[in-house]
Amino acid sequence: MEDKSPKPIRCKAAVCRAAGEPLTIEEIVVDPPKAYEVRVKIVCTSLCHTDITVWQAKVAPVFPRILGHEAYGVVESVGEHVEGLAVGEAVVPALLGQCDQCPSCVSEDNNLCTAVPVSLAPVMRRDGTTTRFRDAQGNPVHDLFAVSSFSEYTVVDVNQVVKLDPSVPPQIACLLSCGAGTGVGAAWKLAKVEPGSSVAIFGLGSVGLAVAQGAKMCGASKIIGVDLNPDKEKISKTFGVTDFLNPSQLGTRSINEVIGEMTCGGVDCSFECVGVPSLVTDAFRSTKMGNGKTIVLGLGNDTDELRVPALELLFGKRIIGSALGGIKPKTDIPILAAKCMSKELELEGLVTHELGLQEINTAFELLLQGKSLRCIIWMGK
Amino acid sequence: MEDKSPKPIRCKAAVCRAAGEPLTIEEIVVDPPKAYEVRVKIVCTSLCHTDITVWQAKVAPVFPRILGHEAYGVVESVGEHVEGLAVGEAVVPALLGQCDQCPSCVSEDNNLCTAVPVSLAPVMRRDGTTTRFRDAQGNPVHDLFAVSSFSEYTVVDVNQVVKLDPSVPPQIACLLSCGAGTGVGAAWKLAKVEPGSSVAIFGLGSVGLAVAQGAKMCGASKIIGVDLNPDKEKISKTFGVTDFLNPSQLGTRSINEVIGEMTCGGVDCSFECVGVPSLVTDAFRSTKMGNGKTIVLGLGNDTDELRVPALELLFGKRIIGSALGGIKPKTDIPILAAKCMSKELELEGLVTHELGLQEINTAFELLLQGKSLRCIIWMGK
Repeated sequence: MEDKSPKPIRCKAAVCRAAGEPLTIEEIVVDPPKAYEVRVKIVCTSLCHTDITVWQAKVAPVFPRILGHEAYGVVESVGEHVEGLAVGEAVVPALLGQCDQCPSCVSEDNNLCTAVPVSLAPVMRRDGTTTRFRDAQGNPVHDLFAVSSFSEYTVVDVNQVVKLDPSVPPQIACLLSCGAGTGVGAAWKLAKVEPGSSVAIFGLGSVGLAVAQGAKMCGASKIIGVDLNPDKEKISKTFGVTDFLNPSQLGTRSINEVIGEMTCGGVDCSFECVGVPSLVTDAFRSTKMGNGKTIVLGLGNDTDELRVPALELLFGKRIIGSALGGIKPKTDIPILAAKCMSKELELEGLVTHELGLQEINTAFELLLQGKSLRCIIWMGK
Repeated sequence: MEDKSPKPIRCKAAVCRAAGEPLTIEEIVVDPPKAYEVRVKIVCTSLCHTDITVWQAKVAPVFPRILGHEAYGVVESVGEHVEGLAVGEAVVPALLGQCDQCPSCVSEDNNLCTAVPVSLAPVMRRDGTTTRFRDAQGNPVHDLFAVSSFSEYTVVDVNQVVKLDPSVPPQIACLLSCGAGTGVGAAWKLAKVEPGSSVAIFGLGSVGLAVAQGAKMCGASKIIGVDLNPDKEKISKTFGVTDFLNPSQLGTRSINEVIGEMTCGGVDCSFECVGVPSLVTDAFRSTKMGNGKTIVLGLGNDTDELRVPALELLFGKRIIGSALGGIKPKTDIPILAAKCMSKELELEGLVTHELGLQEINTAFELLLQGKSLRCIIWMGK
């Protein structure tokens, strides 16, 4: 009788061998999916700043490693006990799991599933092992978020596999799986932006622009975008930013002073999308007394400390941290995808470049130089 | 025709002439209430740590000043345009206003009325002036929160006057107007403590013990009390604390490590009730990933900075600052008073001492030495 169980696959992947060095395109071996695992054929992936942070070894410095955690693909094979997912179905492998049973998943405002905890360090799988990748010499190659989408194939826990309507364009699904989902989610799920309210967004990269779209979707009437790069003014307005501020052009006035004047005392919600601790303080100071919310989305280094003026906090301000903008992947990514299809959300403009896997180091250069928003890397290109 | 309009009143008050010096009992003059103002005959008041902070000139150093902002009294006279309040009615003068019309009052989660903004500095009244007090030489004496209850009479904006059922015991009404209201409110309104959840309370003074009662009222099943004073173990358990921890008796283990072990990863909500920035960090680190909330209630100095580890925040944690525990005075103090009457809340144990106005400096000593929780100062004693 023929053995139809999935076999190891040899395929191409971009491997990060050492911190800050160009990735190398290598032939690797991807294990078959074990119980509760799904092997996904990646169709496209994109580069997120968190990949850069890990690549620069600012957090969890473990190499060799296959990075990548924004992606779209199709189910190639499934392990034992995987239900509701068939070979060929369109999916997004998400960095957060969703088991729908643990206390976090049952809770309305907690998206950190405890069944498969997220970590920037290599994640322990259910069977007590970590990676499913080996290099040509048979040595293990670490993964990232148990997603590692800079590979033609990857193995993901079933809790991290989000099934999508196959009519959703691959690049939109890809963007929603991390950066754009984080930005829109931060406005929608965490800040719960209200119609007619005011927001300030610090940093107009992909996440910041997605926040603008999320805030617009929620009905915010004043969306202040803050960036040192004057080129961001034009593009940010296509994403819904109503007022652009360049902190270097305010003379002696501080950014929070100017925002305070523009909004009669501060915005309802501010978002830090860069990962610079002093900007979190600026964002905090730009919110109004009483119930102003600061949503923190950026991360610089894993040892960063944020500084908050105690007296201002005591006047009713709030600070909210976020993994994936508070969205629950299986519940919310399909909702956001539908909003993209109906044009309630317009995220296409985030795709500024498209390359093949062989050119992945160019994607790193573009993002590091601030020349790209999102670069889609097509596996088949 | 007889002029029945209110006249200036000569009465006794405890005046703070200089930072950190004993208050002096002086005869002062209290102006009649102007439009939208109410003159209140104080029945009793109590001493809160914020009075001590202002007395020590750690914030807003302006003297001479009449402190005091936790009190209960009766309406003595009303100014023009005051509706719904009659002479002799039982009231609490609250440090926060509630106009029920401004955007903050209309909002569900904002208790900082903008009609009469709160400030630690002398508050500007509606007519553009500040205090209603003069000393024997006719010189102005500043007020605190426009309440200044360390006086037999005081003049309060109508937005700050909370009418109460006269059957509520004066000392309970007094406690609810600041410290106990802040503690209970923090658990009830800000943390929104859920049945079966876990909380940690840093600092078991009056506010911390009121948090314990609030958490118990909301159905928390694990209430961890943290204090360096071993005497707090016994009393805190009468307020609902289920587990007492003394950080000095944990050997090499940190408080957040121990709380993490006791709660499988951290409490749902922690409360800092002392005003020490490093304790806010401890409280934050003691909360669980995903949606752990840290409620900040204490204030040391007005220049204090809180430090928050960025990476932990990004795993979904939240920090919430509070004025008066998020309660809206006119709406929520009567609700809490009713809960006290029905014994759903038990706050009587907070009253450890009772003195007359002449002995007010003893109340300062008792609180500074950690010998009292709340000392009720009776004006008629």
